[in-house]
Amino acid sequence: MNRGPEKWIPTLKDIQVAAYRIEKYIHRTPIQTSSSINDLIGAEIYFKCENLQKVGAFKIRGATNAVLSLSEDDAINGVATHSSGNHAQALALAARNRGIPAYIVMPENSPGVKVDAVKGYGGQITFCEPTLEAREYTLDRVVMNTGATFIHPYNDPRIIAGQGTAALELLDDIDNLDIVMTPVGGGGLLSGTAISVKSVSPDIRVIAAEPVNADDAYRSFRKKELVPSNDPVTIADGLKTSLGNLTFPLILENVDDIVTVSENGIISAMRTIWERMKLIVEPSAAVPLGALMERKLDVRGKRVGIILSGGNVDLEKLPWQS
Amino acid sequence: MNRGPEKWIPTLKDIQVAAYRIEKYIHRTPIQTSSSINDLIGAEIYFKCENLQKVGAFKIRGATNAVLSLSEDDAINGVATHSSGNHAQALALAARNRGIPAYIVMPENSPGVKVDAVKGYGGQITFCEPTLEAREYTLDRVVMNTGATFIHPYNDPRIIAGQGTAALELLDDIDNLDIVMTPVGGGGLLSGTAISVKSVSPDIRVIAAEPVNADDAYRSFRKKELVPSNDPVTIADGLKTSLGNLTFPLILENVDDIVTVSENGIISAMRTIWERMKLIVEPSAAVPLGALMERKLDVRGKRVGIILSGGNVDLEKLPWQS
Repeated sequence: MNRGPEKWIPTLKDIQVAAYRIEKYIHRTPIQTSSSINDLIGAEIYFKCENLQKVGAFKIRGATNAVLSLSEDDAINGVATHSSGNHAQALALAARNRGIPAYIVMPENSPGVKVDAVKGYGGQITFCEPTLEAREYTLDRVVMNTGATFIHPYNDPRIIAGQGTAALELLDDIDNLDIVMTPVGGGGLLSGTAISVKSVSPDIRVIAAEPVNADDAYRSFRKKELVPSNDPVTIADGLKTSLGNLTFPLILENVDDIVTVSENGIISAMRTIWERMKLIVEPSAAVPLGALMERKLDVRGKRVGIILSGGNVDLEKLPWQS
Repeated sequence: MNRGPEKWIPTLKDIQVAAYRIEKYIHRTPIQTSSSINDLIGAEIYFKCENLQKVGAFKIRGATNAVLSLSEDDAINGVATHSSGNHAQALALAARNRGIPAYIVMPENSPGVKVDAVKGYGGQITFCEPTLEAREYTLDRVVMNTGATFIHPYNDPRIIAGQGTAALELLDDIDNLDIVMTPVGGGGLLSGTAISVKSVSPDIRVIAAEPVNADDAYRSFRKKELVPSNDPVTIADGLKTSLGNLTFPLILENVDDIVTVSENGIISAMRTIWERMKLIVEPSAAVPLGALMERKLDVRGKRVGIILSGGNVDLEKLPWQS
């Protein structure tokens, strides 16, 4: 039986439980450094490589935690979500790992590779028109018909707790960080990271980076009032979503600052990571380094941890190719 | 003073000394796995990520070992080599790390990015005509004029010992491997790997993979006689060189088999690693997986270690883009 959205506030304890729960379903991702990037920025940067995570993104952490949190009675009917991105793949794989169905509502104009990826993990897709209304209506119907539990991509404490586990690993592996940075879209990764960092080491600053073209989190943070994004256009397609009513207060409380990056800055940072680190990252993952390359934050001489959020890109066409 | 090429035979002890000597100048590279690639091949594959190594390739291991092996008297005059590839960058960086000059002879038609990379590491470039004769003549002159020590890209025991350290780390991190695979060009990585593996765990099979279009090692191995390559055409440009008179006998003695891969197989394996593992590898590095994808070797149910040799590619133009 679907009990509606979960609304409790995740704590360090929830993140630690999540880490234990999901451990055998995820990779403990490596942390990579690049002396040429360090020279470029004038800081010591530690990249937590969630692009090397299963499904190519940190999203498997939250999805797995949510799926494994369900009671047997709830789990049997499966899980459902609407997403055309990494959360869809992650939920499909997490559900398959538990042996339950995953119902994914995707816009009918989703790229074939994304549809195939969800199917590849055993997700059952229902297509809808590419509007917010159609998406929500279709999801409601799927949930009604199947009894599946809706797992929101970010505005859910089980998701937030799962995403926070990446930062726990980072803190465990690297001592004496001064700053931890993540990109921000809906705020699941950012709020989970901020809870982990501020609970373990309150002196470490938590800074988010966002495309200037999709700066709803930046504006919400400044205004201390949730400003939704309005159909933004950015190459960082994972960061187009607005903050949620659960993630926003957690960010206000635990995040030190939010900075913005130009589109060229994102592309330039992405290419730098590809060239210097030999890592495939998606545009969203390059946003924090982009902010440092654009000197939006003074990190000289500091030890900075950056979560490289994902690596799912179209290899046919790269943003620096004309 | 240049004493001519070194000709002693490296042993496990030399590789262990090299590992200790180079430790603080290299990355201990991570080992990555991919469940989708495991499913595809039907084996457990452990990828040793030398594409994430400094200068983007295992070559920094051998170059650093060679440079640090020099006596103070020899070192002061610097090192020299001819290479337009990863060895040139590696030697330049290794020399800079010791504070000595590196003289690199490169063909005048070398791509600008490669020239810039060598310069970026402080290498002093002398251009020559793009022929073997011009290259050797120019190198001889450089060595004569500077007193630098010539460091061959692979046919040198200090280089072989350095390259063998990657396999030591692999064996240290992953238990119970059945097979270790590397690509083979000049044979430095292969012979060093084979000495490490056969000395530590003689039961592990060592298998090399080579482009069918540049199969001099395959033919030499079968014929038990050094067959030089003859201007081969392959996308795996790191593997065009012939075996050397030092690497060849080591390979005959310590390697179990050599298999070949088509050009399409190399491209397909490269793309698979990019897509599934989010790792940028150069074509040469994809050759062993290409051999497995083409079923040139029966590895079903086996535990296979593969050394991903490097990640230096031109990001403007990818081989699968028309």
